[in-house]
Amino acid sequence: MNAPATPGIVLDAVDTPALIVELDAFERNLARLAESIAGRGVRLRAHAKTHKCAEIARRQVAAGAIGVCCQKVSEAEAMVAGGIADVLVSNEVVGERKLARLAALARHARLGVCVDDAGNVRALSAAARRAETELDVYVEVDVGAGRCGVAPGEPAVALARAIVAAPGLSFAGLQAYQGSAQHLRSVTERREAIGRAAGAVRATRSALEAAGIACPTVTGAGSGSYPYEIESGAWNEIQCGSYIFMDADYARNEWTAPLPRFEHALFVLSTVMSRPAPERAVLDAGLKASSVDSGLPVVWNREGLRYARASDEHGVLEIAPGARAPALGEKLLLVPGHCDPTANLYDWYVCVRGGVVEDLWPISARGALY
Amino acid sequence: MNAPATPGIVLDAVDTPALIVELDAFERNLARLAESIAGRGVRLRAHAKTHKCAEIARRQVAAGAIGVCCQKVSEAEAMVAGGIADVLVSNEVVGERKLARLAALARHARLGVCVDDAGNVRALSAAARRAETELDVYVEVDVGAGRCGVAPGEPAVALARAIVAAPGLSFAGLQAYQGSAQHLRSVTERREAIGRAAGAVRATRSALEAAGIACPTVTGAGSGSYPYEIESGAWNEIQCGSYIFMDADYARNEWTAPLPRFEHALFVLSTVMSRPAPERAVLDAGLKASSVDSGLPVVWNREGLRYARASDEHGVLEIAPGARAPALGEKLLLVPGHCDPTANLYDWYVCVRGGVVEDLWPISARGALY
Repeated sequence: MNAPATPGIVLDAVDTPALIVELDAFERNLARLAESIAGRGVRLRAHAKTHKCAEIARRQVAAGAIGVCCQKVSEAEAMVAGGIADVLVSNEVVGERKLARLAALARHARLGVCVDDAGNVRALSAAARRAETELDVYVEVDVGAGRCGVAPGEPAVALARAIVAAPGLSFAGLQAYQGSAQHLRSVTERREAIGRAAGAVRATRSALEAAGIACPTVTGAGSGSYPYEIESGAWNEIQCGSYIFMDADYARNEWTAPLPRFEHALFVLSTVMSRPAPERAVLDAGLKASSVDSGLPVVWNREGLRYARASDEHGVLEIAPGARAPALGEKLLLVPGHCDPTANLYDWYVCVRGGVVEDLWPISARGALY
Repeated sequence: MNAPATPGIVLDAVDTPALIVELDAFERNLARLAESIAGRGVRLRAHAKTHKCAEIARRQVAAGAIGVCCQKVSEAEAMVAGGIADVLVSNEVVGERKLARLAALARHARLGVCVDDAGNVRALSAAARRAETELDVYVEVDVGAGRCGVAPGEPAVALARAIVAAPGLSFAGLQAYQGSAQHLRSVTERREAIGRAAGAVRATRSALEAAGIACPTVTGAGSGSYPYEIESGAWNEIQCGSYIFMDADYARNEWTAPLPRFEHALFVLSTVMSRPAPERAVLDAGLKASSVDSGLPVVWNREGLRYARASDEHGVLEIAPGARAPALGEKLLLVPGHCDPTANLYDWYVCVRGGVVEDLWPISARGALY
């Protein structure tokens, strides 16, 4: 795909819609997370599903992450191809074709995967043996999200036993991610949800211990809650992803210490393509330029302009009385409602510093669904 | 991107998530639209924003369409590269870089574009002169959608005059699309909205006539309303797009004659990747596999299974008591809520007939935002 910019041009010359990374804010976010976990006894395994970009993954590793996690085998392939040596597919992988790819990939990097089913453990083991590789396998425990995962305690132990017994697999620990807690608005609600999740993790670790099964790693946590996971002492690895970009939906959360103040670093640059009425402007960025699953994009740093509705290729802005109205052709920055599915719409990050394009990073796992 | 299938394999062997076109239903939809407008004095200019695929555009032309419309210059480039000789960008194009590309493209195909601003007419004219090409220019009239477009009547005439006077441009008629009418649920509401739009078109045509300006084409209409546009006699070109696929949101409309009964022809094939509880299954298709802007996907032909919530890479199915529960690894078809932004998530249409993959079509304008 043609890129919307070349290094050296000013932001205002970038073709639109384009996905912009503000490098200063992005780098501060990387540093802030690293500082916030320094000396706390946890590793960062950054979530690459947020950005789908090996360039960003390499920077996360350079800032201290031990590797990344992914949700799809094809994402893991893109990360390994981009030089990431330690990748966890923090998700169940089902189907012979995918398992064969996963097992083959373990020739090129340390590869982990999650399970919540005994039949899947057998299938994974068969794939690993066929490929003559070894996979780290984590038992996913449902710690409150109500999505995948086995119940805490004995069901997790039974699965861990099956992994320990399976050739080609090594039991690496527990995947314990309370995803539905991340967007609970108040810090009190989030802290309580993570407290309950920590109880489930402790019960499972005790049951594993009683069964004589070592549990090297408990991995989980997201950008909206990870200090609570750390406080609990139940996790030793965190999987934050959105902290690098901070979308509009995350910003609607209450953020108080110990949560660091992450900054918006991801934007959609858009052009005013129509000024049909004094109170209305139309942008060239609609549903195909910013995912609206978690709310509409928010106009950045322009008071009185509200992104009011989206259609496929249009965004309708309401201009408040007295606000400075944008001119036809003017470019505006939007903060996307949800960074992960928005990044998945683009082929390039246009990286900007001080108003000038510094670099372009290919979104190498864009559309990597398989 | 790697394709999730190869021709000749059965549907159940396709890797997931994958975007499936049921060819029989797709071809019946093509034929149904053609029959419904035969002898009615209107041309079809099929909307390629729905599918973003030159293979499909060529089939639409073979079924009688005079060409396609697009929303973006980059989509038009993909269509012209794919052999489509007559393309209308049914949208305003703003910005020097885009205008230069549009004007250059007019060397290779008949190219139209819409305007709602006099300054934009001057910029278009300059671009066409620089490229030594000619552009068909349509005045977009706001016929009730409240998005882009000038008011009906005199404002449209003033702009038409400017186009007539501008070197490199030829006034081709009116763009009059009542987009917000397409999803009004009752046929009565839709018919009334199109009735009002027709009044606006007639008033504008009369004003153009009074000004001595010929108006060769009035173009607009969508899959949810086009028989009403035809009945009104005010349009001579229609821009249906979604009729080829019929998404879940369109299916929630009331459909009575003269609207033909289009069939669902686009599906997301997904795999059950977790069966954590008797009443719950988790699919491998979430927000990055099916756009949820117009509602969640709907499970196809499996009673008692409801797609209840989506996260980035997961879809949670609720299994009703007594329903046949899907097994781990089973593949299910989903009807996407909204076809256009869903197709934009994929690189390939996997074309299936009688349960066997017949062809793979690249989604050549996927991500073509510029």
